[in-house]
Amino acid sequence: MSDTILAALTALSIAPAACVTHAKSISQTAWIDSLGALPSGAVPERYRLLKTMVFKPKTAKTDTPIPLLVITDDATQTSTGAIGAHMKLKELRLAAPELLQSTLGATKDDVSPFSVTKSNASNVRVLLDAAVVSSHVLYAVHANSASETLFVPGAAIARYLEDAGAQIETVDLSTLAAAPAAGKPPAKQAVPKSKSDAKIPEAELIGITVRKDGDFPEWYQQVLRKGDMLDYYDVSGCYILKPLSFYVWECIQHFFDTEIKKIGVQNCYFPLFVSSDVLEKEKDHIEGFAPEVAWVTRAGKSELEKPVAIRPTSETVMYPYYARWIQSHRDLPLKLNQWNSVVRWEFKHPQPFLRTREFLWQEGHTAHLTRAAADEEVLYILELYRRVYEELLALPVVPGVKSEKEKFAGGLYTTTVEGYVPTTGRGIQGGTSHSLGQNFSRMFDIAVQDPKATDETRGTPQGRLFVWQNSWGLSTRTIGVMVMVHGDDKGLVLPPRVASTQVVLVPCGLGVKIAQDVKDGVNEACADIAKQLSDVGLRTHADLRDNYNPGFKFNHWELRGVPLRLEIGPKDLANKTMVAVRRDTGEKTDLEMDSLERTVPALLDAIHKDMYQRADAEFRAHRKVVTNWDEFTKTLNAKNHVIIPWCEEEACEDQIKDRSARTVAEDEAQDERAPSMGAKSLCIPFAQHEYPSIEGKQCPQCGKHAKRWTMFGRSY
Amino acid sequence: MSDTILAALTALSIAPAACVTHAKSISQTAWIDSLGALPSGAVPERYRLLKTMVFKPKTAKTDTPIPLLVITDDATQTSTGAIGAHMKLKELRLAAPELLQSTLGATKDDVSPFSVTKSNASNVRVLLDAAVVSSHVLYAVHANSASETLFVPGAAIARYLEDAGAQIETVDLSTLAAAPAAGKPPAKQAVPKSKSDAKIPEAELIGITVRKDGDFPEWYQQVLRKGDMLDYYDVSGCYILKPLSFYVWECIQHFFDTEIKKIGVQNCYFPLFVSSDVLEKEKDHIEGFAPEVAWVTRAGKSELEKPVAIRPTSETVMYPYYARWIQSHRDLPLKLNQWNSVVRWEFKHPQPFLRTREFLWQEGHTAHLTRAAADEEVLYILELYRRVYEELLALPVVPGVKSEKEKFAGGLYTTTVEGYVPTTGRGIQGGTSHSLGQNFSRMFDIAVQDPKATDETRGTPQGRLFVWQNSWGLSTRTIGVMVMVHGDDKGLVLPPRVASTQVVLVPCGLGVKIAQDVKDGVNEACADIAKQLSDVGLRTHADLRDNYNPGFKFNHWELRGVPLRLEIGPKDLANKTMVAVRRDTGEKTDLEMDSLERTVPALLDAIHKDMYQRADAEFRAHRKVVTNWDEFTKTLNAKNHVIIPWCEEEACEDQIKDRSARTVAEDEAQDERAPSMGAKSLCIPFAQHEYPSIEGKQCPQCGKHAKRWTMFGRSY
Repeated sequence: MSDTILAALTALSIAPAACVTHAKSISQTAWIDSLGALPSGAVPERYRLLKTMVFKPKTAKTDTPIPLLVITDDATQTSTGAIGAHMKLKELRLAAPELLQSTLGATKDDVSPFSVTKSNASNVRVLLDAAVVSSHVLYAVHANSASETLFVPGAAIARYLEDAGAQIETVDLSTLAAAPAAGKPPAKQAVPKSKSDAKIPEAELIGITVRKDGDFPEWYQQVLRKGDMLDYYDVSGCYILKPLSFYVWECIQHFFDTEIKKIGVQNCYFPLFVSSDVLEKEKDHIEGFAPEVAWVTRAGKSELEKPVAIRPTSETVMYPYYARWIQSHRDLPLKLNQWNSVVRWEFKHPQPFLRTREFLWQEGHTAHLTRAAADEEVLYILELYRRVYEELLALPVVPGVKSEKEKFAGGLYTTTVEGYVPTTGRGIQGGTSHSLGQNFSRMFDIAVQDPKATDETRGTPQGRLFVWQNSWGLSTRTIGVMVMVHGDDKGLVLPPRVASTQVVLVPCGLGVKIAQDVKDGVNEACADIAKQLSDVGLRTHADLRDNYNPGFKFNHWELRGVPLRLEIGPKDLANKTMVAVRRDTGEKTDLEMDSLERTVPALLDAIHKDMYQRADAEFRAHRKVVTNWDEFTKTLNAKNHVIIPWCEEEACEDQIKDRSARTVAEDEAQDERAPSMGAKSLCIPFAQHEYPSIEGKQCPQCGKHAKRWTMFGRSY
Repeated sequence: MSDTILAALTALSIAPAACVTHAKSISQTAWIDSLGALPSGAVPERYRLLKTMVFKPKTAKTDTPIPLLVITDDATQTSTGAIGAHMKLKELRLAAPELLQSTLGATKDDVSPFSVTKSNASNVRVLLDAAVVSSHVLYAVHANSASETLFVPGAAIARYLEDAGAQIETVDLSTLAAAPAAGKPPAKQAVPKSKSDAKIPEAELIGITVRKDGDFPEWYQQVLRKGDMLDYYDVSGCYILKPLSFYVWECIQHFFDTEIKKIGVQNCYFPLFVSSDVLEKEKDHIEGFAPEVAWVTRAGKSELEKPVAIRPTSETVMYPYYARWIQSHRDLPLKLNQWNSVVRWEFKHPQPFLRTREFLWQEGHTAHLTRAAADEEVLYILELYRRVYEELLALPVVPGVKSEKEKFAGGLYTTTVEGYVPTTGRGIQGGTSHSLGQNFSRMFDIAVQDPKATDETRGTPQGRLFVWQNSWGLSTRTIGVMVMVHGDDKGLVLPPRVASTQVVLVPCGLGVKIAQDVKDGVNEACADIAKQLSDVGLRTHADLRDNYNPGFKFNHWELRGVPLRLEIGPKDLANKTMVAVRRDTGEKTDLEMDSLERTVPALLDAIHKDMYQRADAEFRAHRKVVTNWDEFTKTLNAKNHVIIPWCEEEACEDQIKDRSARTVAEDEAQDERAPSMGAKSLCIPFAQHEYPSIEGKQCPQCGKHAKRWTMFGRSY
């Protein structure tokens, strides 16, 4: 079949870069596989898949339908509604097999632009993506057969179709806005301006198609899904954590669990369900959660007598039992933790890891005899959270205390570690360790006989002591921050300590001319080294698949963020060397085979350290001291956090939020990438010494006496 | 105040065993503490707390109310309804402080039988528990003061009250049935016959008050609650797993997680919620779960457009995504596992660990290219389940395959490990590893191109291959079985490998006459040894509390099942020896201090082995081969499992269930301890070789050709 096409192309002076036959491909994924399975060199190093869809518009019964071929890049999202609106065609549906056969003599699996010939061109209309035509990338195009593929530039496809005499309409498909469904607003606002700028023209076949700094929300979704971290789920606001991301969580669990056990925290499990009586006991506290509480009202076909809530957090679940278990000061401290999931049915736009209706976390709940003991623990835990970010995820955070407005409802004070996402300039709360004081213990009557009570007060209400409580939690949002900060245009970049695969070995330079025993030697060396590195505790994988070429493997593992790639070819084997390629910088180093057990761990450590330092430098560069109000919003808009000498008054905080929101709405387009929201106080950093003396400073917003340097910012 | 009482007792020739003053005790728990805090020898070694409650019956407004003193053992459950019915008094309420003061001159904290005197006896009526009067145990009784306690036998209390001239009614309070609330049946049937037999007369102060073989359900609840494993919760069917039981689960998690990772299983997390469309996709499968599915219909105050279910298991949650992720045979095998909780809103009587509305488990879901690979994994996992029971929990199980009737709905076949609870003679399903065959993959269209497809079938429906799937799960019910089998009349008995404390050190023989430096020496030795044993990986605790005597500590740790106690006194220290006491047998061994690092681990291993062997011998003794029907129910009723040569026909299984149920209903009382339920097939054991040749055998129930030896029994 391809002979006719090749002849037509030759007549147009077009020479395909390659022309291959392969296993029949019934889906785009199978096609990737089939091409990947071909020997090294059979296909170009870099190419993209072409997608050809055939639609039937609504046609009067007596008319012969004229199908519409839509030709675009496989990764380009299309909307039938938008295409229909653009082409002035109604109710586009995928064409039935019979129509495909009668108009183009093709099936849905092998249809391609090359299915259009001079003899059938008048049967169809063609909508060609301008982005394909202008691209310099090679496209894989079926030669009107699911088992044959030609590689040609996009422009060649346009010329072929013109020559065949097709009715062609060329348009940039990514700029066609999604047509609103009747009566419903579009799920997400289209942002035409930035979208096409954001595209990565030379993006790899299976890679990320938009730039991180061009279309960050789309980039984030692609990195998570194509990088195998997460999948979307059919209940809105819920996501599937795939093994790659869950492994990160397991690393965090292992570290944190070990450390809290050192101070006597024990794990336990409280039920998922809460009765409404208990849930609503602490008024201040529940006020914050009530609108988001999910209620079970039915089991099977029976209505429950009393609906039960799903825990949004467990303070009110656990504390009635603390009141029962804590009878004497000898029952203190009580330190319990649980690893579980909680549900907060938010109605805002969900975002994987950052704002989800169910999320995984740990929640610690402890009770102490003295405030001093409780205070000490609050900071011990916060320090562990800082270490999770810095030592595991290579992310800088600013530890501090929350303002009265931002503290945990019902608690005494809240400490926090605050992170930063450079691309958006927004802050993100990383984890919080709360002192609850005696508020909950009074509410739930968790009290003991004061061991220091005098003879007179002993046994009387005056001799009772309400316990001092803490609660602290860290969630899977950690993973979202990690992806947002470290990821790049090629995909995920995983910090070595939480990567389920730290090192991948890829045999290279094994073209068709290389003798089999040499190939075997290289493969064996890779397997041996993988074993050797695994034996010293490095999570290593040798990618010995013989059906993929090295380029495909490089992309595969880069997309998934593997920190270090080791390439070994025949010459390397002979010289007992190899090339190490860092995922974070792309930097290449030659390594001696004999000293890998020393050099590879050192390289991984260096990667961790460098990733942290780059992120830290970036965060520091975006924490700006501001002392007069004129600079405030301007500084904020330049993706900075703003550190001001602050009065710490709640009314002032409200004003700061209002004033910084108003200003930005005037001078900047309002979309989800550059939020118009006002700034809130993120924390009062513990490291006050990093800033000038607060003595005599005034709050730039209200002019009142400033108490401490406080970090404000827009935040997730 | 006690002087008057002592004088009255002396006049009756009653000499209290002890008379102490202590910290004011405002609750029974505080009282235990206060008494425990007294120096060794100040209080008797064994005693129980007396409970005195004062009620006011409904009285005409013009009448002076006559309060009712109810005097009983602290551990005895009382029902105001039943007491009121018995005494013909209406609407008993706890008496107000004013009434207590005006009639007895006492507060609720210090009221006791000794509050009744000759001058006020006519103001009150007394209901005295006959069990207290007849007991030979010493009772701790407040001397009409919350900070003074006398120790007297129950009979002395009766004589004192008679002498004071009180109106006394004596009745065995435990036999007073709970009075049904208006229009409602009692939550639990009272079982008068066995209850009083079941009581342990010399039960320790804080110990279990019923015998395991007397009142098993009550024993089970007491062991769990007093042994600190679990607490009840205010949503029915849900329980709190306290650290002691959660630690067992962590041990199981650690072992199982490590082993499945060896065969390439990866952990992940799928959402808690399921959309109804997805849930109901596999009809056979969902039929079994539908009546128990909990539905979220509301969030905050908003009704959800479409209710979402809480997962009862995750087959239908996960498999739509498997269909998406598995595109090629190179994506196989896919082996995912998750540790989560599932919800099955059962309406049957709940039982901690065994039948709960939410439970923790792991669920593995894997997909394979070939049936052989799937089959192999089914058995690998089942073997791990067997090892969890035998190697961690010291419990024997019978591995086998389920009958068609009992297999997992929608699957191909189910393998299982079956446990046994000797006290009830009931079987319990320990964990199941299912082959799902291709049923779910057809339903969810999880298929790949068959790599062995011929040129003709490749790319056609005939060339597609539906994957072979397994699912397997093990839940926290494991913990329930462990408690039921190993526990004894003193409380929990934990197998050493899952005990959060394996060894407890208790300093002994440090009476008031012992010099302080000797005491210090013994305490230091205990601490040193604890550290030494911890350093070699044994979970060791030195109980150096100076406010409890050794007897109290022994009880405390026995109740909580700590496998090994080491007692060290001054003489032991001098001889460099100590006494080791096994929790499982009570057996004492002298150990040399110098060789503890060898002898203690050996003792723990011996404990594990012996616990397993005893349980195994008991289970084996109750697996009876039966070949004629007459023996079937009789054997079953003697708390046995019955092994018959079985035809394996479903109709026959139904008949066996009916016939074995009918028979027992005739000859045995029907209550929840001796269930009248019929027998079902538990499994067809893999170890067929343990039984005679099946050749020529007939099914004893229907007379048809027998296929395999099959284990039947009543079960949880």
